[in-house]
Amino acid sequence: MALDFLKFTDENSIRVPAPDLHKQVSAILQAVGTPADHAETTAKILTKASLMAVDSHGVSNVVRYSRSIESGEYTVPQTVEVISESDTTALLSCGNGLGFVAAHQGMEMSIAKAKKHGVGMATIRDGHHIGMVGYYPLMAVQEDMIGMAITNASPAMRPALGAAPRLGTNPIAFGAPADQENPFLLDMATTTVAAGKLGLARRLGVPIPVGWAVTAEGQPLTDPPENRGNHWSQNPLGNTREQGAHKGYGLAVMVDILAGVLSGGGFGSQLNAGENMSWTMAVDISKFRPLDDFKSMMDEMIQSLHATPAEPGEEKVLVAGDPEWEAEAERSENGIPLHSSQYDEMRTRAQQLDAELFI
Amino acid sequence: MALDFLKFTDENSIRVPAPDLHKQVSAILQAVGTPADHAETTAKILTKASLMAVDSHGVSNVVRYSRSIESGEYTVPQTVEVISESDTTALLSCGNGLGFVAAHQGMEMSIAKAKKHGVGMATIRDGHHIGMVGYYPLMAVQEDMIGMAITNASPAMRPALGAAPRLGTNPIAFGAPADQENPFLLDMATTTVAAGKLGLARRLGVPIPVGWAVTAEGQPLTDPPENRGNHWSQNPLGNTREQGAHKGYGLAVMVDILAGVLSGGGFGSQLNAGENMSWTMAVDISKFRPLDDFKSMMDEMIQSLHATPAEPGEEKVLVAGDPEWEAEAERSENGIPLHSSQYDEMRTRAQQLDAELFI
Repeated sequence: MALDFLKFTDENSIRVPAPDLHKQVSAILQAVGTPADHAETTAKILTKASLMAVDSHGVSNVVRYSRSIESGEYTVPQTVEVISESDTTALLSCGNGLGFVAAHQGMEMSIAKAKKHGVGMATIRDGHHIGMVGYYPLMAVQEDMIGMAITNASPAMRPALGAAPRLGTNPIAFGAPADQENPFLLDMATTTVAAGKLGLARRLGVPIPVGWAVTAEGQPLTDPPENRGNHWSQNPLGNTREQGAHKGYGLAVMVDILAGVLSGGGFGSQLNAGENMSWTMAVDISKFRPLDDFKSMMDEMIQSLHATPAEPGEEKVLVAGDPEWEAEAERSENGIPLHSSQYDEMRTRAQQLDAELFI
Repeated sequence: MALDFLKFTDENSIRVPAPDLHKQVSAILQAVGTPADHAETTAKILTKASLMAVDSHGVSNVVRYSRSIESGEYTVPQTVEVISESDTTALLSCGNGLGFVAAHQGMEMSIAKAKKHGVGMATIRDGHHIGMVGYYPLMAVQEDMIGMAITNASPAMRPALGAAPRLGTNPIAFGAPADQENPFLLDMATTTVAAGKLGLARRLGVPIPVGWAVTAEGQPLTDPPENRGNHWSQNPLGNTREQGAHKGYGLAVMVDILAGVLSGGGFGSQLNAGENMSWTMAVDISKFRPLDDFKSMMDEMIQSLHATPAEPGEEKVLVAGDPEWEAEAERSENGIPLHSSQYDEMRTRAQQLDAELFI
């Protein structure tokens, strides 16, 4: 959920139709040697994130991915290898290429296994950024399944009571289908805020609230810091011991276990910046009980939550996914707003690479 | 993690050996008609919680369970029914009896299915309190598996931005084995604190910190409130919008979906006080990669977290489960401390029911 002071305005952004952005992302990736199918998968996921207003994980990131490919940090073309497999499980290597490609395949395999056996699970090593983690549960939701995905990262978060970063922002995403209502879609960093929110605040030149980040001495930071390092950390969800920082921290370790240790790809402090191990799961609802009954109970639950009286000063109670579904409807109609600096950067990058210009 | 001001002291508590408490719990349950095997399962789980210092979910709860059985709120003897089943999934009915019995069976089935197929999952309707949720993942950990369990409850937590309770404290527990180190064991309410902490504060006559609970008007409560109702709520983990309240809230809804909607037993606001639906999962690590490799990487991760410099004023960084494993070692040696009022209550209840006295 974006905070108001981090929002784009008409003055600082340009609207671009989603299909054009998709084409631009794919063209840039292909211009640095990404095979067409991998470029299309990545473009699809990045464009969906931008449509859903998860701008920190949207199309503009293609510029840095293209640089990582060019520099050899990403191995492209990549080979996604199935290292081990059972009825319900798979261990994949992303081949040090685009994280999107292997995470997408991991969720496809999870869904196929769930269709046969009820549950499917994949864990992915040798990976990089997978973008908006919520995309992958949505793949399961489209198949009328429950979906879950997580990803770990190099250190940004301190452990509760700790004075140095040891864990990534380690997001957890979970989705489930409803009938008349939009699907439930939770997509949350296990820090108080996603790292992207700090970057966005820095770009927009606004201070951050106390509780988002601390110095190595545990003092609150309100100027969004420049670069990762041991001199500052993001706080785990909960912030303080009394308010449950050990819970955000514990969830982040759970993410490291499923994505990093189960895959063998490594936990937070073993990873370099830009390395991300991932995990996906799909659950076939109809193996438990009739799908229609599940979906209509989801509707009832979502309606009951929406009907909760709001606290004074707030308009209404939301359900996870509401802002994203609303944004998707609006941006599909009016185009995706890009910060003008991001728009310029994408065009410049495409021109540099002699890629066709679509925006 | 218990906060210091909520701890038992030598002045307000009595030490009792764990085996005697186990016998006492089982005897009380059998005195109200619980079959011996169900009483033993329940006693085992309650005693483990007390050994691990999860006192809010420990042996003293047997008094209220025995009353729920006597009043007919719990159906005892109960029949745990397998409503549907596949290679990897099971839907159970707890038969409105002791929640422990069906949750235990659900995790046993999850483990058996995981051994065969890689992953096993059970969801349980028509249930009641299952005690310390972390017990169930530990069953999987003892089999060298990853385990997870969750349970929902009648409303205590408000949604983010909401002014009335709509969700239970909906805990999530997750465990994974290590080699030389203790297993990782996360067991967390998705509220800032477990409901039991408020009850404990009330019993000890101490105020609660701002952020744990609010009035219907969103004003902080510092006197631990008496009874559940629409006039106050616990806060979701994160507390405020800016600090991520939508995350604690979103996790609580995820719990309602897996335990309440997937089972059909009902989500938070459909439940009466004392009703709890549950969900368990086991994952066979060796289906992904060699167990020994997994366990030694767990050791490395835990050691790296322990070695994180502590923030000023704190002694050391902990890993989820540390306080519980330490307590278990100490209490196995010195006995389990019971608040004297709880000790008296258990003895009085046993005498009322003509159950043998073991404590």
